[in-house]
Amino acid sequence: VALGPGHEFDVIRRFLADLGEPPDSVEVGPGDDATVLEGGWVVSTDLSVENVHFRRAWITDREAGGRATAAALSDLAAMAARPVGVLVSMAVQPLDDVDADAVLAGVREAAGAVGASVLGGDVSASPGPLVLDVVVLGRTDAPVLRTGAVPGDEVWVTGVLGASAAAVLLWVRGDEPPMTLRQAFACPVPRVEAARGLAEAGALHALVDLSDGLAGDAGHLAAAGGVRIVLEEQRIPVAEAARAALGDEAALETALRGGEDYELCFVAPPGLVDASALGARLGLPLTRVGRVEEGEGVWLQGADGSVRPAGRGGFDHFGGDGPGGEAERASR
Amino acid sequence: VALGPGHEFDVIRRFLADLGEPPDSVEVGPGDDATVLEGGWVVSTDLSVENVHFRRAWITDREAGGRATAAALSDLAAMAARPVGVLVSMAVQPLDDVDADAVLAGVREAAGAVGASVLGGDVSASPGPLVLDVVVLGRTDAPVLRTGAVPGDEVWVTGVLGASAAAVLLWVRGDEPPMTLRQAFACPVPRVEAARGLAEAGALHALVDLSDGLAGDAGHLAAAGGVRIVLEEQRIPVAEAARAALGDEAALETALRGGEDYELCFVAPPGLVDASALGARLGLPLTRVGRVEEGEGVWLQGADGSVRPAGRGGFDHFGGDGPGGEAERASR
Repeated sequence: VALGPGHEFDVIRRFLADLGEPPDSVEVGPGDDATVLEGGWVVSTDLSVENVHFRRAWITDREAGGRATAAALSDLAAMAARPVGVLVSMAVQPLDDVDADAVLAGVREAAGAVGASVLGGDVSASPGPLVLDVVVLGRTDAPVLRTGAVPGDEVWVTGVLGASAAAVLLWVRGDEPPMTLRQAFACPVPRVEAARGLAEAGALHALVDLSDGLAGDAGHLAAAGGVRIVLEEQRIPVAEAARAALGDEAALETALRGGEDYELCFVAPPGLVDASALGARLGLPLTRVGRVEEGEGVWLQGADGSVRPAGRGGFDHFGGDGPGGEAERASR
Repeated sequence: VALGPGHEFDVIRRFLADLGEPPDSVEVGPGDDATVLEGGWVVSTDLSVENVHFRRAWITDREAGGRATAAALSDLAAMAARPVGVLVSMAVQPLDDVDADAVLAGVREAAGAVGASVLGGDVSASPGPLVLDVVVLGRTDAPVLRTGAVPGDEVWVTGVLGASAAAVLLWVRGDEPPMTLRQAFACPVPRVEAARGLAEAGALHALVDLSDGLAGDAGHLAAAGGVRIVLEEQRIPVAEAARAALGDEAALETALRGGEDYELCFVAPPGLVDASALGARLGLPLTRVGRVEEGEGVWLQGADGSVRPAGRGGFDHFGGDGPGGEAERASR
């Protein structure tokens, strides 16, 4: 049966809709970036599948392990939690030339970069592609959720957007991406420190990480908050290298719908964020990209002031017949 | 590069050897059945790969989800922890005929059977086989570890052994296994209640679940305790249906080396376990299968009293060229 685009999101949606109330010892259940347990433990799990999320022709085995881990750790950043440990499960083809030790070294390196230890995992042979599932364990006394945006709030992002998806577009075309774009794809940095700094500054009404593109992930904040988010097209910090490689319009699309930037999108009380002072302290650009209003959904405001629906974000693994354009994750 | 048997265990061994000390908030780190976090949370993760751990010709999609979950929950039983929740990651071929909803229904059912909720997870398309990674979250104030066996202790198992591996042997031969054997493979029951009952009875010096066969898993208890374990061949409770289908000798081999019984192997102080009273209370046969002595390794004592090394347990995913005989997991 050929399944059209949307099937994967539908599977998740049906599944999550059907889970019921979590037990008392679970403080935040399904529907946010991670699960929060009594005692302040935060848990999330994230899949990375060869030829869906990455190709081995594009990055080294060590990078494959590192980016899978960084992607999972980004879910802890999205809760403003401090990483403690990771568990890694790896299914690998024994007769393939995957260097399993290099993959696991990449996992360890990415975990160590944010102060997390590798605590265990599972390894299995597989007749198929390399599959990594990284479980992250973090801790916080005050998780920041997707809920909490109120009309009048500002919408901000860290860093620059679209570089990782631009690299994928170039690879799929047969071009070699410039180093800046390649690195954004191969070695994403989970914004763990920035999230904690923003939380300490009281800047976080709501928070999500950018894994499915700004339009899609802002949509999570809009839905969870019961509000409408208007993104101002001209303000979106599209990566310069993506503009240079793809042109302005296509580069904006990678920022809105490309995904895997692993930057943060946060909702702050109006006037609270001093972009230059706080940005300097965090060592990251902070850009106000929009505002929260009454209503629902995500909307784009063009240079001429007109406002239109932003459309859904995120590529869909099921929408194509190979890796590349759909090389994006669709997860809880 | 063709990799010989042992490669998979070697990858795990090298990886675990290299992890270093876990952080202070982790009470039990790598090397036991699960990780124990401050606050009594217990976490483990377990992979299940189509055509390695199971074939879709053998069991339904719902059973595939259920047994992957039961196998993961067995790691909580192995710590005498109470299950709270599971996260499930699923990589699935969109053009395949896998019923993703049925797989997830099986996950939910197996979790619910031991009082655990599904708390979230991740879903991805994959060009390869169905891969499930189930993360289990449990809780206990007093985890029971693999360490703790002392010379003079008794070695016990719950239930009967070898049925699941016998089913696999029959399927691989082209035979249809009798219902008892099929059920042991398709619907294993994690011994969560039994483990807690045994812990409350003070019967547990050390504990492991039987995922890789009695010889292999008893080896974990011997290594962790720095002792030798002697198994008395005549006492091993080999499943009657396995004996009937395979003959006594082959059936004993499935019990010793087959794996995926998901029964418990525990080390108890001498004379403490009253098999009939405690077994009746737990609703499970309890069988003393051997003893702990000074020394190292696992040994088999035959009917004539002679003692020989038991050899390693566990099939190796990398030892063959297809699923079946090697349809066993090798995990931490």
